[in-house]
This record gives sequence, C-alpha cells and structure tokens, in this order.
Amino acid sequence: MTGDSDPAPVSRRRLLTGGAIAVGGALTGGGAVAATVHDDRPAPTVGVLTGPQAGTVTEPFHGRRQAGIATHPQAHASFVAFTLRRETDRAALVRLMRLLTDDAARLTQGQPALADTERELAFLPARLTVTFGFGAGLYRAAGLDDRRPVSIADLPPFTIDRLEPGWSGGDLLVQICADDPLTVAHTQRMIVKDTRPFGTVRWVQQGFRRGHGIQDRPQTQRNILGQLDGTANPKPGTTAFEQAVWVPDGPPWLRDSSTLVVRRIRAELETWDQLGRSDKEFAIGRRLETGAPLTGEVEEDLPDFAATDELGFTVIPDFAHISLAQVPDDRSKILRRPYNYDGVPDAAGRADSGLVFASYQADVERQFLPIQRRLAERDLFNEWITPIGSAVFAIPPGCAPGGWIGEQVLG
Amino acid sequence: MTGDSDPAPVSRRRLLTGGAIAVGGALTGGGAVAATVHDDRPAPTVGVLTGPQAGTVTEPFHGRRQAGIATHPQAHASFVAFTLRRETDRAALVRLMRLLTDDAARLTQGQPALADTERELAFLPARLTVTFGFGAGLYRAAGLDDRRPVSIADLPPFTIDRLEPGWSGGDLLVQICADDPLTVAHTQRMIVKDTRPFGTVRWVQQGFRRGHGIQDRPQTQRNILGQLDGTANPKPGTTAFEQAVWVPDGPPWLRDSSTLVVRRIRAELETWDQLGRSDKEFAIGRRLETGAPLTGEVEEDLPDFAATDELGFTVIPDFAHISLAQVPDDRSKILRRPYNYDGVPDAAGRADSGLVFASYQADVERQFLPIQRRLAERDLFNEWITPIGSAVFAIPPGCAPGGWIGEQVLG
Repeated sequence: MTGDSDPAPVSRRRLLTGGAIAVGGALTGGGAVAATVHDDRPAPTVGVLTGPQAGTVTEPFHGRRQAGIATHPQAHASFVAFTLRRETDRAALVRLMRLLTDDAARLTQGQPALADTERELAFLPARLTVTFGFGAGLYRAAGLDDRRPVSIADLPPFTIDRLEPGWSGGDLLVQICADDPLTVAHTQRMIVKDTRPFGTVRWVQQGFRRGHGIQDRPQTQRNILGQLDGTANPKPGTTAFEQAVWVPDGPPWLRDSSTLVVRRIRAELETWDQLGRSDKEFAIGRRLETGAPLTGEVEEDLPDFAATDELGFTVIPDFAHISLAQVPDDRSKILRRPYNYDGVPDAAGRADSGLVFASYQADVERQFLPIQRRLAERDLFNEWITPIGSAVFAIPPGCAPGGWIGEQVLG
Repeated sequence: MTGDSDPAPVSRRRLLTGGAIAVGGALTGGGAVAATVHDDRPAPTVGVLTGPQAGTVTEPFHGRRQAGIATHPQAHASFVAFTLRRETDRAALVRLMRLLTDDAARLTQGQPALADTERELAFLPARLTVTFGFGAGLYRAAGLDDRRPVSIADLPPFTIDRLEPGWSGGDLLVQICADDPLTVAHTQRMIVKDTRPFGTVRWVQQGFRRGHGIQDRPQTQRNILGQLDGTANPKPGTTAFEQAVWVPDGPPWLRDSSTLVVRRIRAELETWDQLGRSDKEFAIGRRLETGAPLTGEVEEDLPDFAATDELGFTVIPDFAHISLAQVPDDRSKILRRPYNYDGVPDAAGRADSGLVFASYQADVERQFLPIQRRLAERDLFNEWITPIGSAVFAIPPGCAPGGWIGEQVLG
C-alpha cells in the first residue's frame, strides 16, 4: 500500500520539461463566494446557516440583478440547458420566460409553482435560487441578435478541448441551486415540464459542493481532486466583485447583466492519483492541506510569484496553475462558482468525476478568455483535466415583483 | 395552468376496477429510521445533528453488527455492486475484505485510507458508514455455498418487473452513506480502486434524502413522488427493530447478520403527475400533506383498515399501498432505508427519477417476500412505479477492532 507519501516524486524539472505542457487548459484560479450580498435586496445569508430549520431559509428572488451568482454557493446544483424548438419565436419566448419567472419566484420562496404536482416538495426551499441564461440561439430565435453581447458565442477552440456535443451549447440555461438535493430535483422537474412546449432538454449537469453545514469554513471547499478550491475569488460586497461580475451601464438589457461560462472538466483521476503530493502542489502552486500558496503559510496569504528557492527557481513555478490564472487588476477577475460531479465509474473502476466549472464575469472576452488562453497554453495542471463540455450564456438583469427575467431583452 | 387541484378526479371506483390492479408491485410500507442505536456501541447519533462542524461527526465502525443499518439515514448514499473476477477465490476474498475493512475503519473515523491519494477528503466523514453485503456469487466463489442464507438468491420474478441487467445482481455490495456528498464520492473512489484487482464494477446507484439539517422532523422524509416516506418502520432500539432486522442466533456467520434487498424503482412521474391529489392519496392510503392515514389526523396515527365511509367502502382502500404492506406482527416487518435518485431527463423532458429502495430484514423469505407478493399482485400504486433493478445480499456480522467484515463467513 503506497500513495500516502511520495514514494518516488517526479522531479519538478521533469514535470516542467517532460511534455506536461504540451496540451492546453481549462480550470482557472479563483474561489467560492463567502457571503451573499444582493445589491438592493433584503439582508443576505452570510456564511453557513445551521439549525433544524435550515430548509426554510430563502434567498430573495426579485432584484435588479439575478440571484444565484453573488449568493453564497449552495450545496447542490443542476445546470439545465435547452434547445429551443423551431417554432419558438420572440412572442413564445416572452410567454416562456413569464412562466419560468413565475415558477422561480414562487419556488425560491417556498411556495409551490402554479402547476405544481408535488406541492409538498416546495416547502423547504433551502436557499433555492433559479438563474436564467440566454445563449446565442435565443437571441437569434427572437430576432434580437443586436442585443446579444458580442462574446455570447462558442468559445474559440483550445487544443486541450475534447468537447462532446452532449455537454455543449444550448439556447436557454437554467441554473438551479439549493442546499437540499430534493429541492433541486423538484425544481428541475417543474422547470423542465414548463419548458417542454418551447424546447427540448439539451443537457443537464448536476453537481455538489460540501453538504450544507458540514464544514466550518464558509468560503473555500475541497474539489474532487482534493484541492482547496476558491481562494482567489472576488468577495461579494467589494468593489472588486462589482467590477468583475456585473455590467455597470449600457442599454437596459445589459446594465446589471453578467455572463456565464459553463465547462465540464473531467478529472483524469487515474493519472492524477499516480502523482506524488509535492508534484500535485507544484502543478497547482498551493499546498494541498492548507491551500496556502507555496510561498505562504495560510490560505489567505497572497502568492509571492517572484520568490525564488536556493536553486534560483521561482518557488511557485511559472507554469503552475495559480501563476497563469493571476490577473493584472480586479476588472480582469472572474467569479468561479463551480460544482463537483461524480458519475458512475466504468466496469474497470475508472472514475467519471470532475468539475461543472461555472464562471461569472461582466465580459467573457475581457476577463475569461485571457485567463483561459494562458491556461490552455502553459498550465501544468492540463495534464490531469480534460474539458469535455463548453457553453456560454448572457445572464440578463433581474426583475422587480410583477416583472419577468428577460423583459429588458425580449420585451 | 392546472394540476394544483383535482380538475376531473378519476373516481375511486374507476381506479379500483379499471385495470390499475392488473400489474404487480414493488414499494413496501414502512419508513425511515429515527435514531441510531448500535447494540454494543458508544453513544449513537440521535436525530439530526447541526452546527458548523457536523462534518466531523463519526459513526462507530466496529461492533458485533455492521453500521449503516440502524444508523439514522444519512443524506447521501452510493450503492456499489461488484462482479468478482474468475480468479477471485476464498483466499483472495479474505485479502479483499481485510483491505476494504481497513479502508472503512479508517475513513468512517475521518482518517485517510492507507493508500489514500486525496487524503484531505477524508477529514470530514460526516457520519460516514460503509456496509458490506455478500451476494450468492461470493459464496460460490469462496466454495462456501453451505454458509449462504437460503434466501440470498435472485428474487422470484414479479409481473411488474422490468429488470435491467445493468441494475441487477452482484457478488459484493458496498453501501456508502454520509451526510456529505463529497465524502461519499471519495469513499466510493477508494473502495472501487482497492476492489479493482478482485472484481469489476457491476452497477453503482447513487441517491439522496433531504440534505443534512434541512428538515426538523428527523424521522420521515419526502420521496421524489412527494410522499412522506418512512412512517411505519420499526424504530431502532425497540424489540420490534431487533426482531425485524437481525438474525438472533445460529452459527457465527449468521448470528447478528441481516439481509439487504436493493431494488431500483423508477417513478412514472408523467402519469403520476396526471393524477389528482385525492387519487394519489387513495393509491397510497395516506394524506400527501401530513402523511396521516386516511383514517387519521397526524402521521403517527395508526391506520384503521376497518373504518368505512358512508357508502360502506373502507376509508383506506383494500388495494391501497399501506393496506397491502401491513404485516401481522413485528417479526414480519422490514426496515426500509431508501434513497431518491434523480438522473438526467431525456430530450423530451421525461424524468429519470425514482427510489433506490433498500430493505433490511433478518430473513428475505419470511419478511420481504410476503409483502412483495401482496404488493405485486394488488397494489394500486404499481401503476406509477416500475422495478428496473433487483439484487439481494447477505449482510455478514460486524467485527471487533483488528477483525474484518466477513471473517465469520470466509475465515
């Protein structure tokens, strides 16, 4: 039995020169959100709520920005992408979004949807949020391509990509998050049923983070590769967060909007598991146990990318994930809000695990793509991850009571 | 928008006579466990633990009976079934069970497994239990068929069954339960990796109940059909529970053992959703909102199967699920410990949801089969559920520190 220690560690030099850099990459530096700060909304949920009635806690639905983004990440998520039917035009989209908005406004507040056939499943919302995203095809179907943010389109191809159509694209995206998996399942069911006349299900990606109340550190969590995942995210309530996530001005369909990139990143656990601990830490640039940068002691320490060791190498390799994911200013940051997935292993026992990587940013072109290009070219970590799905959506602004999501775009 | 009320309720008489009874059945009356009472173990977990450190709570692993049965059901589960390789004989099985026991003993106590490659994922066990079951093929492989409880074999076929090989059978079963989904995923990964030299993965069924700390009623939960599920289970710590679940005597490989039936029950949500609320309640025999029997006010009320209405019909139909699932005495009860599953809907939006139905009982023949036969023949509820998987396992006794699960069978 080995593996607990590093029996024959791959030398850092070998890692850096041995072809590990040949392929492009995907995961980006950042982290989970600490606390919900909803612009003009009621007092938000901060940290992890506990207590026997945590299921009754609600997140506000209405507001000038959509919920489920600055919201402290819930334990469970389902990302549901639809392909619109050919006959779904602008008028039909208005009907659809009015209907889905009504569902979301009710369900997030612990009330059954209008046509709820399992109404009792609505009574424990568990911080449910329902967030809507519009793909390029939706603007096309509505005849409103001039309102589409230019970067809402397929990402350029990256050499590391092994994209599967079954995990890519989509005209309409619904992100459903709650601290309870049954609440997510029920909400997904209601949303899918109401969308059926207008579109088909293109893909569904279900994921999880640490369970509600399980860990005492509200901010970062372990991903399925064992890494502390979420250190460098902008913090809700800060100017950095505002600048990174929300479009500050422009026409009504852009102001207070955002964009979402969803990528399905398969973890190559078979080869990752063959790596020693120190090599894993070099690949990431952080300690596995503490999440501290290799130049620091605790997770919160800022990485010192200039620090060198006795041999003159930088302590944090130039090709480490966090080196390449660093950005020059707050406006270039992205908000990572990823979930783990764990499917069924194959007969040989090889895992089907990874990340439903979800990144929010005001502008895909300005923020996401520069990071992604650097990672795709040089990130060591690319050896152990494979992007198998990719989709990009505009996140329209929120709505007031009586309004509906998408009204600024489609109305 | 309809569905919230009963627009044109199917008459009870039509339900009772119109062919709804033509097919056989599967779900059985019973319920979730209230609290852990582990025979000779340390103070058990009672009810729902909350607090920021719920992840560090452990369930005892060692004991004369295996954990994960009387244990208050955790929020997440993975049932993993293996097919043994041809070369896996009795000696190999001893090696395998020593190895898996060591993994389970460590991981359940929040310690990494010996070969743990993601050791940080072991530190929040969140009430992890790992429970082992032996299928008929394992006894055959070990040349110990004389130690196999006679009812550890495929169940007899039922007309309602639509069993798929991919969800049925298995030589070795590992039930992994914890309040945190990442802990379940990591444990599954370690168990699968260590079993690979000895067997292939036959099927994996992952499921969930209400999230940890989400609901204040510790006992029963809603299943994905919206029913309160778990009212009639024997309660841990009672004589009824003892008699129902554990083999009281016999040779060492039987005493303190149990048996497990795992059936994958697809919920036919499309047709279930077309049913009005009162028809759903007739089919089950309980109120959807409260879980109370149709003759009672609250969930805990005992059903009065003799009570009649003004027309002379019994208030609880003879063909209702709870009528057929009732048993004559405590020894005939079963312990239901089911989980919900929610897969990915198809393109048309039809759900892939249901129950990973798990039933523990001392004797499959004496307890499970009589209930199952009644339900298969006459249960109204059969219209809306389809068994698509079935497997039966012996649950060998527990072990003391230094021992290993299966030692009484294989040693």
